[in-house]
Amino acid sequence: MSVSDRVRKSMVQGSWIRKMFEEGASLKQRYGEENVFDLSLGNPVMEPPAAFHRELKRLVNHHLPGMHRYMANAGYTETRAAVAEQLSLEAGIKFTASDIVMTCGAAGALNVVLKTILNQGDEVIIFAPYFVEYINYIDNHGGIVKVLPTDEQFIPKLDILETAIGSRTKAVLINSPNNPSGALYGEGFLHQLGELLNKKEAQYGTQIFLISDEAYRKIIYDGCKYPQVWPHYQQSIIVTSHSKDLALPGERIGYIAVHPNCSHRGELVDGFIHCNRILGYVNAPALMQHVVRHLQSVTIPVAEYQKKRDFLNDHLNKMGYSVTKPLGAFYMFPKSPLEDDVAFVRELQQWRVLTVPGTGFGTPGYFRISYCVDDRTLEGSIAGFRKAAQKFNMC
Amino acid sequence: MSVSDRVRKSMVQGSWIRKMFEEGASLKQRYGEENVFDLSLGNPVMEPPAAFHRELKRLVNHHLPGMHRYMANAGYTETRAAVAEQLSLEAGIKFTASDIVMTCGAAGALNVVLKTILNQGDEVIIFAPYFVEYINYIDNHGGIVKVLPTDEQFIPKLDILETAIGSRTKAVLINSPNNPSGALYGEGFLHQLGELLNKKEAQYGTQIFLISDEAYRKIIYDGCKYPQVWPHYQQSIIVTSHSKDLALPGERIGYIAVHPNCSHRGELVDGFIHCNRILGYVNAPALMQHVVRHLQSVTIPVAEYQKKRDFLNDHLNKMGYSVTKPLGAFYMFPKSPLEDDVAFVRELQQWRVLTVPGTGFGTPGYFRISYCVDDRTLEGSIAGFRKAAQKFNMC
Repeated sequence: MSVSDRVRKSMVQGSWIRKMFEEGASLKQRYGEENVFDLSLGNPVMEPPAAFHRELKRLVNHHLPGMHRYMANAGYTETRAAVAEQLSLEAGIKFTASDIVMTCGAAGALNVVLKTILNQGDEVIIFAPYFVEYINYIDNHGGIVKVLPTDEQFIPKLDILETAIGSRTKAVLINSPNNPSGALYGEGFLHQLGELLNKKEAQYGTQIFLISDEAYRKIIYDGCKYPQVWPHYQQSIIVTSHSKDLALPGERIGYIAVHPNCSHRGELVDGFIHCNRILGYVNAPALMQHVVRHLQSVTIPVAEYQKKRDFLNDHLNKMGYSVTKPLGAFYMFPKSPLEDDVAFVRELQQWRVLTVPGTGFGTPGYFRISYCVDDRTLEGSIAGFRKAAQKFNMC
Repeated sequence: MSVSDRVRKSMVQGSWIRKMFEEGASLKQRYGEENVFDLSLGNPVMEPPAAFHRELKRLVNHHLPGMHRYMANAGYTETRAAVAEQLSLEAGIKFTASDIVMTCGAAGALNVVLKTILNQGDEVIIFAPYFVEYINYIDNHGGIVKVLPTDEQFIPKLDILETAIGSRTKAVLINSPNNPSGALYGEGFLHQLGELLNKKEAQYGTQIFLISDEAYRKIIYDGCKYPQVWPHYQQSIIVTSHSKDLALPGERIGYIAVHPNCSHRGELVDGFIHCNRILGYVNAPALMQHVVRHLQSVTIPVAEYQKKRDFLNDHLNKMGYSVTKPLGAFYMFPKSPLEDDVAFVRELQQWRVLTVPGTGFGTPGYFRISYCVDDRTLEGSIAGFRKAAQKFNMC
């Protein structure tokens, strides 16, 4: 056997999703790319903002000596300082470069954090629906995943969390705005969460980290201000990237930020830097570190995503789909009209509309629509959604 | 405790090296950067070749839609095909895109390979002196490190390897040209190694991988042709990067290549792609994948490194140092005049010359010089090496 048992198991578990993607690909071959409406991937069709292209051109056309060499594993001090400055503005508390570690995207950041903090058998709590890779990332570093439910608005249920936290709970991992639900956790919720975690730390005499995956922090709608974790809990660590806010998912550029008042902050950050190195990331890509240094306040035009959300939300509601209106990110997570969400997603495939069953996010009975696609694809999908609705007498 | 026991142990083990770096940094502060001769890091001072800058400018000034988006986790098919084409030319056997997975550098590649193949407790054999990160990478994925010795020329001893391979041996990891010794493994050696591994596979009924870390493959001297592993063993996997051959270590661009006739090749490559994803690398940085596609036959001027090697080798020999002349890479690994290599490296520090003790590579009694530095630094170091030699009556 060439592949380890654990990796094979993980590949088999994911194989039904892969099979669906393959079926989608074969639909595209049969009917032509333009006649299949692929809403299954979180790969933004939007181009990076003009400021990104200007900055990249400036750097490349006037390159500095040594700009592609190794730097410290934490990243360039100038980039870390620029991130800290922008975070300070947004969060209302003061960060410095020493609170920031540049990483290969949010996925790299999360692996670095988990590797750093987890002893074999430590528990990490996540909430369904969840980004499916969390399961793999926690398992990579010997952690035990504990999945807890959310309410009808996809907000974690704190009473259940309270009973679930134990002496082996090392971290609670949240993701707001959420993939796949689009839910945004409010100030009130975060305040209660912080109080609960403080109480549990005191009860067990442990350090419990709140890891906030903020990959979609800048993609929020209706003029909302992003509710920050920082004021509510000191043992907070955020992981994020410029994959969505600058539309650079292929470039693998992100960062870890830790609360300046976190206990053992120095050791923790040293651990992150060490793990960034020993996990083989070594450092975040150099050129992109240079580029994002001056783009910390730049974001793609979020209004375009909001328009797509509104378009889709209006149509689906009119057809009778049960949708919780997303407040951020670029996903929608309607209830499946069939109890069997996989069967319903196959039904949509019949109409050449590709989505992902909620089962893939630990939440059967729902399905995920990714609307970070061009308008033609989004508009093209409406007929398929309507056909499916008609078939199940929703209209 | 904020950091896991395992990570803390790994940090403490490396802390003496870090302390030395800090001492070096404080020397630089005291005497000025230009009066300290830092030969401790493998961070090439050489700039990327002109062809790299041309290609990068071309791409950035005429950017294509979607060029910073996610692509398949294996990388762009066009880049994989370009790598396969160049490898086919060099190796004399036919590779295709499906044998290649693009990665975040050789360090990313090696972590992906080890994650894919290792069950808990599987053994990986390495040879001292070794690149110190191998220990961390193997440990990351539950493997057991078995360190074997090399001979006076730093070539692995095959008789010892023969007795060391057992039923739990999953891989033998070699690195030629070698960091830190500069040794280049010849065709004869590789042929014998291949025969031995075939014999052991048959004996145990297992699959034993030969993982060849070829990060320095293009940096070889005296007109040598690189001795390839491919003709000698079918269960071969190489990991490499463009960090040294294109002088891009900060950009994290490399790849895995697997022998087209390797048993279970399809499953293995699927495993690599899966692990590239679940380890959080996701994909090799997109822009660099575009850039290196057309630079597969380009290499920095190796003759410049050879001049540096000759200069240093001649001087050290004349002073009485015992040096095995490196045939590749940009390191030299002389015997330490003192039995205690750490003490000798501290002695050199007195003369403001920074090197790394052999103990850091699992081989006490030696020290590593990195000569990928500018000529001024290299020339400046000679006085220090001479002072130390005089002190120990070597001249």
